[in-house]
Amino acid sequence: MWDRFLRACRREPVDATPVWFMRQAGRYMAEYRAIREKHTLLQICRQPEIACEVTLQPVRALGVDAAILFADILLPLEPMGSPFEFAAGEGPVFDHPVRTAADVAALRVIDPEESLGHVLAAIRMIRRELDGKTPLIGFAGAPFTLASYLVEGGKSAHYAKTKQMMYGEPELWNALMTKLAEVVRRYLRAQVTAGAQAVQLFDSWIGALSPTDYREFILPHVSHILQDVAQTGVPVIHFGTGTATLLELQKEAGGTVIGVDWRTPLGGARRLLGTEVAVQGNLDPLLLFAPRPLLERRVVEVLEAAGPAPGHIFNLGHGILPETSPDSVRFVADVVHERSRR
Amino acid sequence: MWDRFLRACRREPVDATPVWFMRQAGRYMAEYRAIREKHTLLQICRQPEIACEVTLQPVRALGVDAAILFADILLPLEPMGSPFEFAAGEGPVFDHPVRTAADVAALRVIDPEESLGHVLAAIRMIRRELDGKTPLIGFAGAPFTLASYLVEGGKSAHYAKTKQMMYGEPELWNALMTKLAEVVRRYLRAQVTAGAQAVQLFDSWIGALSPTDYREFILPHVSHILQDVAQTGVPVIHFGTGTATLLELQKEAGGTVIGVDWRTPLGGARRLLGTEVAVQGNLDPLLLFAPRPLLERRVVEVLEAAGPAPGHIFNLGHGILPETSPDSVRFVADVVHERSRR
Repeated sequence: MWDRFLRACRREPVDATPVWFMRQAGRYMAEYRAIREKHTLLQICRQPEIACEVTLQPVRALGVDAAILFADILLPLEPMGSPFEFAAGEGPVFDHPVRTAADVAALRVIDPEESLGHVLAAIRMIRRELDGKTPLIGFAGAPFTLASYLVEGGKSAHYAKTKQMMYGEPELWNALMTKLAEVVRRYLRAQVTAGAQAVQLFDSWIGALSPTDYREFILPHVSHILQDVAQTGVPVIHFGTGTATLLELQKEAGGTVIGVDWRTPLGGARRLLGTEVAVQGNLDPLLLFAPRPLLERRVVEVLEAAGPAPGHIFNLGHGILPETSPDSVRFVADVVHERSRR
Repeated sequence: MWDRFLRACRREPVDATPVWFMRQAGRYMAEYRAIREKHTLLQICRQPEIACEVTLQPVRALGVDAAILFADILLPLEPMGSPFEFAAGEGPVFDHPVRTAADVAALRVIDPEESLGHVLAAIRMIRRELDGKTPLIGFAGAPFTLASYLVEGGKSAHYAKTKQMMYGEPELWNALMTKLAEVVRRYLRAQVTAGAQAVQLFDSWIGALSPTDYREFILPHVSHILQDVAQTGVPVIHFGTGTATLLELQKEAGGTVIGVDWRTPLGGARRLLGTEVAVQGNLDPLLLFAPRPLLERRVVEVLEAAGPAPGHIFNLGHGILPETSPDSVRFVADVVHERSRR
């Protein structure tokens, strides 16, 4: 069933639970590593033919129900005026962290058609290649998660400088978040126009915040994005990690599907979220390292926790780690389909 | 009221909400930094006179309702056979990570009187110095959190090797956890015998696990510790971060008080946990960098969320960061007392 994923997003009945994997294209696959030997991550993102090829690799290899654009959540930040590099083993490192009013003022609210045309070209190319057989998901990082990289200058343990700006200079914080939210809104809109059949908003690090702070400092900005993107009619997956106490606020901000990590049992998430949204998740990515009997048991437990009602997309609770065996990923996709077959 | 903290642990009425701070002795204080110029962290821990002095510094400076022993959760690991060092900016680094059956077999189940006598001597000395005016909290790291350092060889982003052992070699995992739990049980018992009037079990990184995995791989070991320590009659604080979906299981494992971080609103935590346990928390430590009006507002929101029923100990959701202003910490202690005065 080619549209199993899209139907589940809309909480329509499906023949089997759809499955895809965050970071399903990536270093755990030999085909990807072969390409990475010749190109950096950012070079792959910037060349539509290569991004297209990498996007399709897991669709061919895994039997997943959706393709996800190969890109990086940080891509919009360079044209906004904050270039960065991926330092070996350290993640992204920004040349100049965004800390002052002048830094925020200097950020450009870009036009994605102009500044991120290569991503949109990749989407058009992938759609042609997929030829209607598998739907394509686009994505973007959410404002808090993007701001955390910009303000810290890279990844972070405590988000100390980010929260210091948020708490200490709320006007500056709101100016930064407003710019990021508008860029993300335009970027997701442009991805849909280019052909993305669903989009995922990655607020990967939002779980660092309390519900009170989420409501005060984050929700209006996420809402600005998601209420607008909803009007395109494509399903929107609103994802974060460590979000057990944020789910209702995330739903309020927007999304057709709420993506949760393994810390939040899906049964409880569905009771909390009600029947107006679907849920996505939520196997611990480290379970892909477990022996098959335990792995299968945990996959089935996720299916059982999600229950028989329509509106569950199987996924991990976060991205596949580079050391993962592709066989285990394929095994999970098969178990999901077999054990959920209606 | 000298026993405000102990009364709140037992859910008895108090004149004002008690307050102490995780890492209230530490680098944010000039008095502590002066001592650290002459001694390493481990040297301070190993010399009872200095550990005593450092423990007392915040009691003098902050007006807190409890002292907490200055020590490190990793101290038992060296006599168990796993020496480590604190590398600048990197946290602890172990000489030989524990990964194999031989590694686990080589770990010694120590006698704390013999191997950690300096900690027990510090407790006796601190009790004499405090002279009944402020109660003293002892503490230990919980088995999962300790295992994560041992198996990873230091701190970790994904706990990949730890979870790989847990999922892939459950018998080895249980052997490791059994040894750690028995050491922690003995260590906390010995601290109580030496004079600790309450103890806190730090399962700081337990929030990396799903409830299913907690029940299967963790709960029996934590229960082994806490059911036994409960028999001493001193209050036991059972603390973790990112524990929104683990709280009921943590209560099942044991504890007089459940400590939660800022992600879990205290009102919800108390509803979930019922009236048989007290709660501790839960201001985001980064709020200590906020301007006073926001800081005060958030402190009052924590008090309001905890509600008027007995059984709330005010604390942060995790430790004070080194860059924190001592004035802000003192301000919070004062606001807690003033705004909760009965």
